[in-house]
Amino acid sequence: LTDLIPLEWQGSQLRLLDQTMLPRQEVYLEITDYRQIVSAIRRLAVRGAPAIGIAAAYGVVLGALSIHTSNKKDLVKELQPVFTALASSRPTARNLFWALEQMQQVVEKGKTAGEIKNNLVSEALIIHAAQLSSDHSLSRAGATLIQVGDAVLTHCNAGALATGGYGTALGVIKQAFQDGKKIRVFATETRPLLQGARITAYELKTAGVPFTLITDSMAGAFMKQGKIQAVVVGADRIAANGDTANKIGTYSLAVLAREHHIPFYIAAPKSTFDFSIASGDEIIIEERPPQEVTCLQGVFVAPEGIEAANPAFDVTPHEYIKAIITELGIIREPFEEGIRNLRQGK
Amino acid sequence: LTDLIPLEWQGSQLRLLDQTMLPRQEVYLEITDYRQIVSAIRRLAVRGAPAIGIAAAYGVVLGALSIHTSNKKDLVKELQPVFTALASSRPTARNLFWALEQMQQVVEKGKTAGEIKNNLVSEALIIHAAQLSSDHSLSRAGATLIQVGDAVLTHCNAGALATGGYGTALGVIKQAFQDGKKIRVFATETRPLLQGARITAYELKTAGVPFTLITDSMAGAFMKQGKIQAVVVGADRIAANGDTANKIGTYSLAVLAREHHIPFYIAAPKSTFDFSIASGDEIIIEERPPQEVTCLQGVFVAPEGIEAANPAFDVTPHEYIKAIITELGIIREPFEEGIRNLRQGK
Repeated sequence: LTDLIPLEWQGSQLRLLDQTMLPRQEVYLEITDYRQIVSAIRRLAVRGAPAIGIAAAYGVVLGALSIHTSNKKDLVKELQPVFTALASSRPTARNLFWALEQMQQVVEKGKTAGEIKNNLVSEALIIHAAQLSSDHSLSRAGATLIQVGDAVLTHCNAGALATGGYGTALGVIKQAFQDGKKIRVFATETRPLLQGARITAYELKTAGVPFTLITDSMAGAFMKQGKIQAVVVGADRIAANGDTANKIGTYSLAVLAREHHIPFYIAAPKSTFDFSIASGDEIIIEERPPQEVTCLQGVFVAPEGIEAANPAFDVTPHEYIKAIITELGIIREPFEEGIRNLRQGK
Repeated sequence: LTDLIPLEWQGSQLRLLDQTMLPRQEVYLEITDYRQIVSAIRRLAVRGAPAIGIAAAYGVVLGALSIHTSNKKDLVKELQPVFTALASSRPTARNLFWALEQMQQVVEKGKTAGEIKNNLVSEALIIHAAQLSSDHSLSRAGATLIQVGDAVLTHCNAGALATGGYGTALGVIKQAFQDGKKIRVFATETRPLLQGARITAYELKTAGVPFTLITDSMAGAFMKQGKIQAVVVGADRIAANGDTANKIGTYSLAVLAREHHIPFYIAAPKSTFDFSIASGDEIIIEERPPQEVTCLQGVFVAPEGIEAANPAFDVTPHEYIKAIITELGIIREPFEEGIRNLRQGK
């Protein structure tokens, strides 16, 4: 078992691990067209809010490199459908839009077509590298919240494969383990797409962290038995008041954690915060195809023709959150103030 | 789509629907040996507490019919390993032990070997028929708790296939629907073995009740959105204080229901009550093979060699339960008193 690299820029193409095939197959895509990035994001070949942002940044690069003009105006104009297509790939992860905004600023600031193209490549590489650095910073900050011997529950996958770096929630867990805290982990399988069973289990096994895989429905029972001391999850979008969108099932875990007096932590970089929205009510929740629920690994598990719901995320109100762990420090109540300071770089 | 018959006594053998193959295949087993009943219960070919009880009763019949003696003492002695094997098939469902106790009393009361055999057959048929009658009684009682237009959430399968009759929790739902209450249902898929997706979805589709299949992790989000007005589930064992063991995930749903001020109901016949235990702390929770979590429909979804937990049930403390619906009426707080009256037939 080795660490997998979800995204790698190779000069003129992006090497992308197809995460839908894990853990059974390790398939890499050689991507040269931004439309393949749109498709890869949409079908979750690359997933996890920070990794989606990085992929989108490389998507802009691929789009720019395919535009053969030395005229700045033409380049800017022809880049617009690239931005539009990438922005339409998935609606909820804030990092996607944040990365596109960073890339848009590079376009606006550039003086020539050549400069813009060069700077877009640099910016994508910076976004990617900065994520690794921020993962490590927030993991070190978050690890201080984990006590020796704790059993920590995490949901979905917020590890290296979700960030292109070290991980957010799983980064905190790996850091605490490397600090010698003798922790263990409960990993929820995370239906419908089983990112916990398929990806988090892989990452924890690779890192040597002891863990138990559970179904999403078991979390409450283990909390009641006193077997879980902390919950740490990632985030797809955090509102100005701390309300947090994350993988469907997160809200249930937050309610259960509060019922059992277990601290519930969010771990996410600044790029996941949406400072423009006052609360989680404004977060758009992606509804995905019902077949992801009714059909498992190619096998239909429910009768044909039935209705199934498939919201990919839910919103956890900030009242249920003990702290939000970022690369710039730990934010606690009152969240509005802490998030305002984060925005202003204080 | 037609109603499926999970158990049918055919004079000298039991015709048993293999529920592990649903909904893709409708396979019936012709069972002539009590050891096949033990195996069918253990691997969930027959499941649901009341149906397990009925299957066990027929198991005693098959055991008795295979003992060729006209000597009462010999019959009683040779029946003991039959009872022991059936009692060891699964630990949690109270109805299994209740049915075996009913059958044991028939053995003790019988005057001759021939009489005992005849009476065992009658008793098994009575247990089976009485379940249908009790399902209808409790369904009518429970339907009064459902309001016009309610969306009702249920977990796992507590329908006709779980009772050999009409159903408990799903009986309440079907009755409310037939009463013209224009209800709709949220059915949780119920990992790991997907009884909700495979069996409840089938039963609701057959009954024509509108429903939406959801993953277990979605229940909290839909409750928060105000989309669910009641939760009704079955039970595997109910303690004298009302604490209830039911399919893993039930406890989480109960906590979530209380958080959202949604009434949480248990529907179960008297034979599910264990009057001998003071609280749910004394209920033995079956731990099933981890492969049920890591391997879905024959496909391994997690890395090899990892640890997975698989408790089949959890216990919901009575504080979370609004009412317990039985064939003899609706029990509310204080549960101890209501359950004492139920025991005494008041």
